[in-house]
Amino acid sequence: MEKKGALQGVKVLDLTRVLAGPYCSAILADLGADVIKIEQPGTGDDARFFNPFVNGESSYYMNLNRNKRGITLDLKKGKDIFLKMVKSADVVVENFRPGVMTKLGVDYESLKKVNPQIIYAAISGFGQHGPYSQWPGYDLIAQAMSGIMSVTGEADGEPTRAGGPICDVIGGMTASIGILAAVQYRNRTGVGQMLDISLLDSAVASMAIINQHYLVDGRIPQRRGNSYESGAPMESYKASDGDIVLAVGNDKMWKKLVELMEMPELLEIPEFETVHKRVQNRKSCKEFIEQWSKKRTVADLVKNLLDVGIPAAPIYNIAQVCNDPHIAGARNMFVEFDHPQAGKVKVTNSAIRMSETDAGVTRPAPVLGQDNEDVYQNVFGFLPKEIEDFRKEGII
Amino acid sequence: MEKKGALQGVKVLDLTRVLAGPYCSAILADLGADVIKIEQPGTGDDARFFNPFVNGESSYYMNLNRNKRGITLDLKKGKDIFLKMVKSADVVVENFRPGVMTKLGVDYESLKKVNPQIIYAAISGFGQHGPYSQWPGYDLIAQAMSGIMSVTGEADGEPTRAGGPICDVIGGMTASIGILAAVQYRNRTGVGQMLDISLLDSAVASMAIINQHYLVDGRIPQRRGNSYESGAPMESYKASDGDIVLAVGNDKMWKKLVELMEMPELLEIPEFETVHKRVQNRKSCKEFIEQWSKKRTVADLVKNLLDVGIPAAPIYNIAQVCNDPHIAGARNMFVEFDHPQAGKVKVTNSAIRMSETDAGVTRPAPVLGQDNEDVYQNVFGFLPKEIEDFRKEGII
Repeated sequence: MEKKGALQGVKVLDLTRVLAGPYCSAILADLGADVIKIEQPGTGDDARFFNPFVNGESSYYMNLNRNKRGITLDLKKGKDIFLKMVKSADVVVENFRPGVMTKLGVDYESLKKVNPQIIYAAISGFGQHGPYSQWPGYDLIAQAMSGIMSVTGEADGEPTRAGGPICDVIGGMTASIGILAAVQYRNRTGVGQMLDISLLDSAVASMAIINQHYLVDGRIPQRRGNSYESGAPMESYKASDGDIVLAVGNDKMWKKLVELMEMPELLEIPEFETVHKRVQNRKSCKEFIEQWSKKRTVADLVKNLLDVGIPAAPIYNIAQVCNDPHIAGARNMFVEFDHPQAGKVKVTNSAIRMSETDAGVTRPAPVLGQDNEDVYQNVFGFLPKEIEDFRKEGII
Repeated sequence: MEKKGALQGVKVLDLTRVLAGPYCSAILADLGADVIKIEQPGTGDDARFFNPFVNGESSYYMNLNRNKRGITLDLKKGKDIFLKMVKSADVVVENFRPGVMTKLGVDYESLKKVNPQIIYAAISGFGQHGPYSQWPGYDLIAQAMSGIMSVTGEADGEPTRAGGPICDVIGGMTASIGILAAVQYRNRTGVGQMLDISLLDSAVASMAIINQHYLVDGRIPQRRGNSYESGAPMESYKASDGDIVLAVGNDKMWKKLVELMEMPELLEIPEFETVHKRVQNRKSCKEFIEQWSKKRTVADLVKNLLDVGIPAAPIYNIAQVCNDPHIAGARNMFVEFDHPQAGKVKVTNSAIRMSETDAGVTRPAPVLGQDNEDVYQNVFGFLPKEIEDFRKEGII
């Protein structure tokens, strides 16, 4: 590795499992933080059992835990070991149900006593307080309760979830932003703090411009397929070999589109005269456009539309994303590491590109307890005899 | 305000417009950074013309630009003024098409000459380099090309966009993470840098666990409505007065659900015997569940399901989100400010809750050029006479 990461020297104790938490700590690890993932001896993170697998290793897990070191620790039996580690750590991240860390005696108040500068981030479905704080939190549940599902899908169809785990992702990103802000505050003041991040809060925040319609006008935004109320034609259209999107933002672009389609008669149709009318009559407008688009390939349509200045793009499936010369090529969004068990595995790269520091994948995800000796001895100063005893007692 | 923000003292020059860029700088402003939004004299950010409006002021704009100060500057005529401001700034954020800042003579290389410590974040649709770098970037386009649309929607339906502007939001969040990492690096080394953040890269990164299926198995993930391949029943179901989601993760929970529904005969149906079989026969499984759920209210269903330990939630519309006692009440996700033109306006709050620092909305969005005198004179040291001349010449 030529360049070092921006967060070099930031030591993170990572108790998180499955998705939102590991996504947060992966962001920090990609940026160079020393993330030490702590897993239950014997079993580890539940995500180790999630498909797809490569030579028996979960690539779901390997993707989310790249760049981290891995140790095992039973938090019930090994509380004092954990507290010793907290003394020299900068950040602790966890995504247990609220109250679990208190029961274990390792909540923020306890950690603060051994390290007043510690930054403690709790990620949960609903937050640390409030009437639903004990409800189980899943991506699907945050999508349902944030209103995301209510505005996704066809106007005459059912509420629809976004296909990716966006609430887990947005929750994890929100936590990483909070942690980095807390690091900056501590740099300046020497004071640590606790962060309370909820998947649902994060999802609601992401819907801000949609919420605005209700907050100021009392209007409840509805599902409208791929169309927008701010402009038309502006949605998806069928090509001969796939689908495209295009976005006609104003009347000038509309004229350009009509010209490109060689359908001058559309300019005579009063229903398509203004943006407002085209929004109201978008379905019949779409039919005309598809008469043209269905006879042409995705590649030709996108090229011709972009050439006349109309924003357009192919609707890719995941294979097309992973093989695109811009995404996979120029932008290097997929990278390979060599894992001790799985062998060569491709994962999705960080999206952050920095001129002076590295933000990529430099280290495969750990096998369970892989770094026990190294981390307990060299990072936290436990003696080989102690580590041997921890192992015999099933603590690590 | 009792507490100060974590990013107090970080000075951000914000050239961004519309959504992804302003979302990024709003995150920084919510956390206490001094964000100075720079707009074109006379017109300002395009978002000032986006609905919904309150007393003529765009609440779309007001939501995205809360907590920021606002000044005007014509970057073509006022290049030297901008360079003088960069000397004492920490961060510059822009979301122009790649190349625009170079043409204006205010690209990273130029800014670095006047302030080697500057952190410069460029947010664009496709990134600063690569074959598509000049394509226009919109949320819809990033949703199409990242594969998000390909996996959102019904199995037999069309590719569907997520209803919120998730690619703009995730792009803005990615930029804010990069900026905060760069601030930390500069604290330690004194070295500034440039960040190249793309909406498409950010969206592709958010799809990591979905991409994994193709990257390691060559399988192309498909749309599957609200269902999952990892478990069933686990999707949306109709109630008498709305919709719910529930998530049965294993056979034990399935037995609990059957018990709750008082349909012991379901345990005798071989098609529902294992998770794998229920996933394959999820449609007939859903029919049985809806026989039960359609006769009950959302509130009763969610309560009864949670009581027996089955994750469940209502599917909210935006009005329900904005009035929920947990979201709007305990978690305080909607806040009001008093705007000089619009009066009292409600916007969506930050999702970050910190114990020692404030991360809320403390200041309404600026009217165009509102802080010209204060900022040019008191922050950057221009004389009243100079500011008067700038105004006469149409520079500010």
